Amino acid sequence: MFERVAIIGLGLLGSSIGLAIRENLTGVITSGYDADPAVRERARELGLASSIAETAVEAVRGADLVILCVPVGAMADAARDMAPGLPAHTIVSDVGSSKVSVAKALADALPRHSVIPAHPVAGTEQSGPDAGFAALFRHRWCIVTPPQDTPRGKLESLVAFWEALGSRVEVMDAAHHDMVLAVTSHIPHLIAYTIVGTASDLEEVTRGEVIKYSAGGFRDFTRIAASDPVMWRDVFLNNRDAVLSMLDRFQGDLERMRQAIDAGDGDAMHDLFSRTRKIRRRIVEQGQDDARPDFGRGGSAD
Amino acid sequence: MFERVAIIGLGLLGSSIGLAIRENLTGVITSGYDADPAVRERARELGLASSIAETAVEAVRGADLVILCVPVGAMADAARDMAPGLPAHTIVSDVGSSKVSVAKALADALPRHSVIPAHPVAGTEQSGPDAGFAALFRHRWCIVTPPQDTPRGKLESLVAFWEALGSRVEVMDAAHHDMVLAVTSHIPHLIAYTIVGTASDLEEVTRGEVIKYSAGGFRDFTRIAASDPVMWRDVFLNNRDAVLSMLDRFQGDLERMRQAIDAGDGDAMHDLFSRTRKIRRRIVEQGQDDARPDFGRGGSAD
Repeated sequence: MFERVAIIGLGLLGSSIGLAIRENLTGVITSGYDADPAVRERARELGLASSIAETAVEAVRGADLVILCVPVGAMADAARDMAPGLPAHTIVSDVGSSKVSVAKALADALPRHSVIPAHPVAGTEQSGPDAGFAALFRHRWCIVTPPQDTPRGKLESLVAFWEALGSRVEVMDAAHHDMVLAVTSHIPHLIAYTIVGTASDLEEVTRGEVIKYSAGGFRDFTRIAASDPVMWRDVFLNNRDAVLSMLDRFQGDLERMRQAIDAGDGDAMHDLFSRTRKIRRRIVEQGQDDARPDFGRGGSAD
Repeated sequence: MFERVAIIGLGLLGSSIGLAIRENLTGVITSGYDADPAVRERARELGLASSIAETAVEAVRGADLVILCVPVGAMADAARDMAPGLPAHTIVSDVGSSKVSVAKALADALPRHSVIPAHPVAGTEQSGPDAGFAALFRHRWCIVTPPQDTPRGKLESLVAFWEALGSRVEVMDAAHHDMVLAVTSHIPHLIAYTIVGTASDLEEVTRGEVIKYSAGGFRDFTRIAASDPVMWRDVFLNNRDAVLSMLDRFQGDLERMRQAIDAGDGDAMHDLFSRTRKIRRRIVEQGQDDARPDFGRGGSAD
């Protein structure tokens, strides 16, 4: 498959890829780079890659696969930065949450290379090199969005790579990816950020009260709303059209629920609240979430 | 404190109270009742109370404390049902998520009894007698909203009872409770139900895709949106004004974020996304949530 993999950007995703390769792909040599010297230093301490380079050019030298793990708005600069060291045969991929804009940015920056964008649908609210763990991708889907002219062999290598890290892989059109992720990830994050902001700005309810009584549901939103701000700013700047289109639907549906509450229309509420349970059941059945009550939170707080 | 406690309604909350008394208050005799014969049968099998009665009147006979654990819209009927068996000295309390309307309904139904409404801010998305567990209330807040004429000794007994089950107790005005819970619990549930509904009605994205890629954030909303439909319908019917007032703020804030995305205003997004992290940190510090990445979900799916 690949003998040398370079990881550019050593936050949650980059560090997890380094650790997952070490655990699952013995013999593969990894090199890592991060624009932040403190992160490079920490990455060396944590052993996130076989070597941590001082420049992007140095990191990608000799690599068969380069994975860009930087915010989607930083992809083009990261690609240009490393370009002078990039071998001609190297596959360039990424882990960004929006794919149309990344595909374009990388193709523009690296016109002579095989760029195959990808998106492992996995993450936690934590960020930085200490947040990574080797099992992050296990049982999670990785969506690969190859441009039409992608050589079949290169695509197969990238798919095999993600499968080796424990992922299930789906190949998809980039524009469709952006629509799917707008609803399954981007809008949920936007909503979570917004309600946490709303709650912290109230006059009638103090911030201390919001925190104290967060176990009633609010705390789940704060988890998502603790995700990396730069990463998420870039997602919304780069997947604007799909996000706005999905947001339209949500705002319309929310307004209808508002009217149902205002009118005391219990049937409309009960109807919606009953339908949504089935989706939950299928998510648990398909191994995408854990059915334990409260995820064992009760126990862990002891 | 109390020698005999009656629990009316044996779903998640009622069954957890029964189990928590057995674990924490040795010697206290409990009796349970549920309007559903199948639930009573299951409650006997599970040993949720010292005895399970066939009628509410029988269940409350001789009780010092009765706790109504039924949806808030069913409180008045449940109170009237048991009234003929209720001793004069008995304290009547509940676990409902809205307090102004419940206080009024119970006071109207039981004009000669001490009614002290309460709300343990704890729960999971699961419901029914099998969902209960003794640790549900541990490290969680229980808000007690006594009417002004509540005898001090009775209030102290109820506070001591919840503390014995592991809760921390806060005494609060019922109207303020309803405002606090609107933002920390009711609006988050409404939003979660709505986005799960939106996602399941799309034409561009299939329901199968929504489920497959739910690990990007959406699955957290489905957990909340799997909560009991009748319970939540009743909450929105009974806490309408506070919910609508908080929903106004949220809708306004969301519209502003929409405009920021439309305008490509990265600074407005970054500003909000940075502020919300601090709240998360305080929730974890105060033991109201678990900081483990992904709550160990990665591991549990193995």
